[in-house]
Amino acid sequence: MNESADEHIILAHGGGGELTKQLLSERILPKLGNDLLNPLTDGAILGVSTDKICMTTDAYVVQPLEFPGGDIGCLAVCGTVNDLAVMGTRPVALSLALVIEEGLSFAVLDRIVNSIAAAAKEANVLIATGDTKVIERRKGDGLTITTAGIGELADGPALDAARIRAGDAVMITGRIAEHGLAVMSAREHLSFETELLSDVAPLHELIQGMIASGADIKFLRDPTRGGLAGVLADLAEDSGLSIEVDEATIPISPVAHHTAEMLGLDPLTVANEGKCVAVMPGDDAEKVLDACRRHPLGEHAAIIGHFTEATPPLVELVTRAGGRRMVTRPYGEELPRIC
Amino acid sequence: MNESADEHIILAHGGGGELTKQLLSERILPKLGNDLLNPLTDGAILGVSTDKICMTTDAYVVQPLEFPGGDIGCLAVCGTVNDLAVMGTRPVALSLALVIEEGLSFAVLDRIVNSIAAAAKEANVLIATGDTKVIERRKGDGLTITTAGIGELADGPALDAARIRAGDAVMITGRIAEHGLAVMSAREHLSFETELLSDVAPLHELIQGMIASGADIKFLRDPTRGGLAGVLADLAEDSGLSIEVDEATIPISPVAHHTAEMLGLDPLTVANEGKCVAVMPGDDAEKVLDACRRHPLGEHAAIIGHFTEATPPLVELVTRAGGRRMVTRPYGEELPRIC
Repeated sequence: MNESADEHIILAHGGGGELTKQLLSERILPKLGNDLLNPLTDGAILGVSTDKICMTTDAYVVQPLEFPGGDIGCLAVCGTVNDLAVMGTRPVALSLALVIEEGLSFAVLDRIVNSIAAAAKEANVLIATGDTKVIERRKGDGLTITTAGIGELADGPALDAARIRAGDAVMITGRIAEHGLAVMSAREHLSFETELLSDVAPLHELIQGMIASGADIKFLRDPTRGGLAGVLADLAEDSGLSIEVDEATIPISPVAHHTAEMLGLDPLTVANEGKCVAVMPGDDAEKVLDACRRHPLGEHAAIIGHFTEATPPLVELVTRAGGRRMVTRPYGEELPRIC
Repeated sequence: MNESADEHIILAHGGGGELTKQLLSERILPKLGNDLLNPLTDGAILGVSTDKICMTTDAYVVQPLEFPGGDIGCLAVCGTVNDLAVMGTRPVALSLALVIEEGLSFAVLDRIVNSIAAAAKEANVLIATGDTKVIERRKGDGLTITTAGIGELADGPALDAARIRAGDAVMITGRIAEHGLAVMSAREHLSFETELLSDVAPLHELIQGMIASGADIKFLRDPTRGGLAGVLADLAEDSGLSIEVDEATIPISPVAHHTAEMLGLDPLTVANEGKCVAVMPGDDAEKVLDACRRHPLGEHAAIIGHFTEATPPLVELVTRAGGRRMVTRPYGEELPRIC
């Protein structure tokens, strides 16, 4: 590997001196810069127009850094934008902390910074402040990114799982498992990998449309790590109610279905990065479904189940074959480093 | 090494499933929990009492994780609190993202989480939201932490280096170079390491006292990576003025001076984590100095130089021997992974 400082990140790029300034001014600010970020002060002063804000953070450690349909850069932006959106807030600003491994090529870094810039533009958020560190060369990691986000609380229904009642409907805004399967396919070098793309996308507009439908939405969550199964298990636990899910109604593409079988994975437990689970009264479900389908990211939205009084509170899947099985939160080993 | 899941972090702790829930509920929430963090939602809704907030972030990659006078946990809290304070804001809430290496012992994790809790209490900030990821075992890293912070803009002078004029005074709130030298001593196993402690501390109270003095403070910055030299070089660049610094007035302890010589380091370029550089009109300098000295973290505060019209804008050090040398921003290789 060529060790030239001209082509690769070296430790000194993280030292806080002249080389750090160069890295920022030549490779980061031209793409991500704005009036808040450019002065490189210790923080950014933001105006806010409400007295309630949302704060969120996520660390991204996905391997490989670039995968079919996205990379760690757009993932770090969309993941945090989506966390703000499912909290019922309008994304305003993100912070961006890069921990780069010595030896990362500038070509890869440049592509990822471009991807961050494009995703931030699509999500209409500023990168307000950031930090860059460099750690010694080791095997194969390259880059971890931590974003934090600030959103302004929007007018809308009170999102609180405690408001859920028997009869409420469970919806998912699109086809499941595509992010995790795309990353795993790339990692396993599966030959059909190009057919399956990560669903990584910013959901703020889709969710604003769902809220604007006037439905009494009680809960929103993006099913990332732990997948749909993890969110459903949390919902049963937090609401104290059971959920009956109809497997045949869960949207999944044929290629995702096939890939999950090849990899021996339950698609219900696989991470999504451009989907949202929503709960609303059964009577409001069609209204939300219509709002979803008017947005490109919601065209495959579907009502997949409903809450019941059955005790103890569990998630029960009615399978395509007509059988029943419990859905539980995955234990944790299935898919490391997927986001 | 014992591989038992009972004593060490394993990959599955980062999978977002049952084991992640256990890690959070047994080891994190009992120490850091509060009404915002406990629900483990995708973000925290905060009330803010001003229409101007500050957002900041820092990634911490220090090695070793524990060093004389502190550890990566209190460093991650204090560093972000200090960034909020030098922006003239009151720290309100932090986010906390942990990227843990598989194999980290629970004993070390527990100590660091305790240290985070103690520092957050001292700084009077909530850990409002967080994320935990686990990456595969490799050599010796253990843990990186990224904090982001929200502060509320306080009443006070406009902090802007463009307001600096010739005759303005440069102050530092205490003895320099102690954080970086303590970390380097621990790394190099120097025998006198126990004498030298990191200065890591939250500066919000000290800075609020300086602002409350009524002085027209024009600039505040905590000299972390790049040290005092880095801040002075930035100040000359941003103000367009020169700075004359009197070496004999720069506070440094005998043990720090000696350690820097042993390690072949210029203490001006070494990181601090509990100090602040301030600029104010020469006539206001004594007022700020008095305010500093009334706080335990400011007892060694000193006026170390002043701005001049000399061109081109440079930082000139008048040495103890009466000579003169330029102070420049370090290039970047001196002290990797110090914070």
